Amino acid sequence: MIPEYHHALIIGAGEGLSASLARLFRDKGLRLSLAARNASKLTALCDEIGATAYACDASDASSVNALFEALDNTPGGAPDVVVYNPSARQRGPIAELDADAVLAALKITAYGGFLVSQQAVRRMLPQGQGAILFTGASASVKGYPQSAPFAMGKFALRGLAESLAREVQPQGIHVAHFVIDGAIRNPGRENPADKPDSLLDPHAIALTYWQTLKQDRSAWANEIALRPWLERF
Amino acid sequence: MIPEYHHALIIGAGEGLSASLARLFRDKGLRLSLAARNASKLTALCDEIGATAYACDASDASSVNALFEALDNTPGGAPDVVVYNPSARQRGPIAELDADAVLAALKITAYGGFLVSQQAVRRMLPQGQGAILFTGASASVKGYPQSAPFAMGKFALRGLAESLAREVQPQGIHVAHFVIDGAIRNPGRENPADKPDSLLDPHAIALTYWQTLKQDRSAWANEIALRPWLERF
Amino acid sequence: MIPEYHHALIIGAGEGLSASLARLFRDKGLRLSLAARNASKLTALCDEIGATAYACDASDASSVNALFEALDNTPGGAPDVVVYNPSARQRGPIAELDADAVLAALKITAYGGFLVSQQAVRRMLPQGQGAILFTGASASVKGYPQSAPFAMGKFALRGLAESLAREVQPQGIHVAHFVIDGAIRNPGRENPADKPDSLLDPHAIALTYWQTLKQDRSAWANEIALRPWLERF
Amino acid sequence: MIPEYHHALIIGAGEGLSASLARLFRDKGLRLSLAARNASKLTALCDEIGATAYACDASDASSVNALFEALDNTPGGAPDVVVYNPSARQRGPIAELDADAVLAALKITAYGGFLVSQQAVRRMLPQGQGAILFTGASASVKGYPQSAPFAMGKFALRGLAESLAREVQPQGIHVAHFVIDGAIRNPGRENPADKPDSLLDPHAIALTYWQTLKQDRSAWANEIALRPWLERF
Repeated sequence: MIPEYHHALIIGAGEGLSASLARLFRDKGLRLSLAARNASKLTALCDEIGATAYACDASDASSVNALFEALDNTPGGAPDVVVYNPSARQRGPIAELDADAVLAALKITAYGGFLVSQQAVRRMLPQGQGAILFTGASASVKGYPQSAPFAMGKFALRGLAESLAREVQPQGIHVAHFVIDGAIRNPGRENPADKPDSLLDPHAIALTYWQTLKQDRSAWANEIALRPWLERF
Repeated sequence: MIPEYHHALIIGAGEGLSASLARLFRDKGLRLSLAARNASKLTALCDEIGATAYACDASDASSVNALFEALDNTPGGAPDVVVYNPSARQRGPIAELDADAVLAALKITAYGGFLVSQQAVRRMLPQGQGAILFTGASASVKGYPQSAPFAMGKFALRGLAESLAREVQPQGIHVAHFVIDGAIRNPGRENPADKPDSLLDPHAIALTYWQTLKQDRSAWANEIALRPWLERF
Repeated sequence: MIPEYHHALIIGAGEGLSASLARLFRDKGLRLSLAARNASKLTALCDEIGATAYACDASDASSVNALFEALDNTPGGAPDVVVYNPSARQRGPIAELDADAVLAALKITAYGGFLVSQQAVRRMLPQGQGAILFTGASASVKGYPQSAPFAMGKFALRGLAESLAREVQPQGIHVAHFVIDGAIRNPGRENPADKPDSLLDPHAIALTYWQTLKQDRSAWANEIALRPWLERF
Repeated sequence: MIPEYHHALIIGAGEGLSASLARLFRDKGLRLSLAARNASKLTALCDEIGATAYACDASDASSVNALFEALDNTPGGAPDVVVYNPSARQRGPIAELDADAVLAALKITAYGGFLVSQQAVRRMLPQGQGAILFTGASASVKGYPQSAPFAMGKFALRGLAESLAREVQPQGIHVAHFVIDGAIRNPGRENPADKPDSLLDPHAIALTYWQTLKQDRSAWANEIALRPWLERF
């Protein structure tokens, strides 16, 4: 059985991958809700694709609760697809990092993923269907030097995704974690010296998210790493 | 850039996944060549989809060479997509296994993958494009007891895929390894007691192979594990 | 060169593994400092082995700072070996977990590891030598259902260990992460029905920690998984 | 229970790691048997440590059988510790590799590991004790470009080790796989420009093999990666 989805919520929406996901999902006929800490940044995109913007601090439980309650009260109700994109990184020698900023980064990158998943699962379980997609990075599977906080957050998010997949897939909720292993092309800020297709095209990434959503539940993927053909890895 | 492929060769063709791949690729407009040790088993499928069957022992260098030379001489020439499916397993306590049969299994599961890749790469490199897809199993990533030969073969095939991906992707050849983590549904021999979608649907698997082939080269996947929603893992 | 260490700090000290580590390190001639949220629980052990107990909430930056400042002011000064053991888990369906408790668990299991590592590295770097050991669990490498918070914390701790190893080993600080893949035997509460050696002996684990500390720096291990001979994995 | 071993067989003996293992095990009181394709290369070492040299092609079943039968007939009989070291690599672009040499390499690196394990297990099972140690490489866990045959062989050997561990550890046989992730220092051919301890010291590696052999069976390690403190990984 191939799931049919109707309403996608993208958390951590903005430019780049999130915008490509929003446009593609809209083109596929889904209703779109976008959430970001600063909802005003979403105005242009929401106008373009007919989506609704929500302000939400994904690392704050009450803010996440409020977001989902607001969605419950929309026509069509809660989302059956949720994409979790937010992350924060603190770079530098471990001895020099700011401890408060590290905690804040961990909360945004990983704890927010838990908060959002919890609200999403509560609404998807009664339907027996849904999908939760997590955006990871190279740091999800390899701890780079001078980047301990990002490794902690992205490893934790992957642990969440693995645990969730084992827990809720038998109840009909598809959980997939994407390891974006390379730099994403940023339209308008491209380097002419780059070889063609040497940076990840956000629309190409979005297509793989979509294809994953449309997998028959007899053959679900739980983790997909994507990298440019020229990437060294 | 999304690659355009024209001619797919499926090695180890037969029922199940191979037949689903053949039908799907044909539907997508590719020319199909099918190879198996016993080509007569391919007659019905080849008649159905208009493909050509070839007899080939994938574990034998001269047989693999002969196959590719035969394909070179067809209208349209060599394949630009190659799928490697063959495998053999020897089960039982390690103390009781037949050493010759273990070597034969290792040659079919892994060495044949090398032989086929070598011939394929020689033809794809001048074109600057192509795709080589390997079919793995749960045993590709976990060594199960009483199944050392299958673990050896499937681990080796994964090592080949990883090495090849790093070597030939920057030359335009996409290399992907699929971990089929569960039992494939066998049409006609289904167990009515099975829950719906509890076994991997071969057509669903084939769709993911196809979607992987059509990935933009800025965002290629190299390994995808597929399992049923109800699978414990 | 095999490092010579003099002063070990064990965070999250208590019964079980921590006590075995403390006794073994003391027998090997190291000075011992033990820290736990509730220092009074350490009195008996400290009396036994001549160690000093410190109260410390590892998930609180100022508490961790105070601990290290106190150690700076002891004869012999800061530790050159630090073991990070604390963890907390919240079990249950994700929909039912308490969000505040999940954050608290993540802070104890992972963020505290960062705080402690930061203070330790600041003191080890000028010496060009030191060791930081992290205690992981099965959940460090596999996300189990109904245990997302523990997976998040232990995955994050592993990401920290990997990042740290790459960052500080070239400056002489050995970083090792231990995956304790099974239940630890709890002296005094043993089940006579258990087969011999079917649970991890904490002294046996401690021996492997010690051997890792005494590895020549030309051949350092960064991750070691330990499990009983009878364990299914 | 910590196993007591008496007779170690090292396959693929020669200079470097094998010689360090032989000397260390002898110092620890074990009887030593050394095997290599060319036994005459072992004369000096055997004379030094009082070991017996055997000629054996590890990739040939009858040669391996003959080796174990010869050991059966020695005073003290079959080995209770077996170390498998042989490997062969073929480097170069996949298109240019010699197919026969690739098969020979796969047989030496991996299939020989199976043959030796099978003979060893047959003799260890009745004793309910024994240890089989495999020497891996960086290529055991990462497929490098232009090195597909080595990746195939070392991945396969790791699959064998994983399968064997799950199968025979509950019968008392410890199985451990070592990932030697860096270059081993070659005494007499050192580069004065190398930083101290920047290459793996074979004696240091041997110590970790020995410590692994002496682990309590309640806390066995199955895989240990070793690398120099200065290694980038």
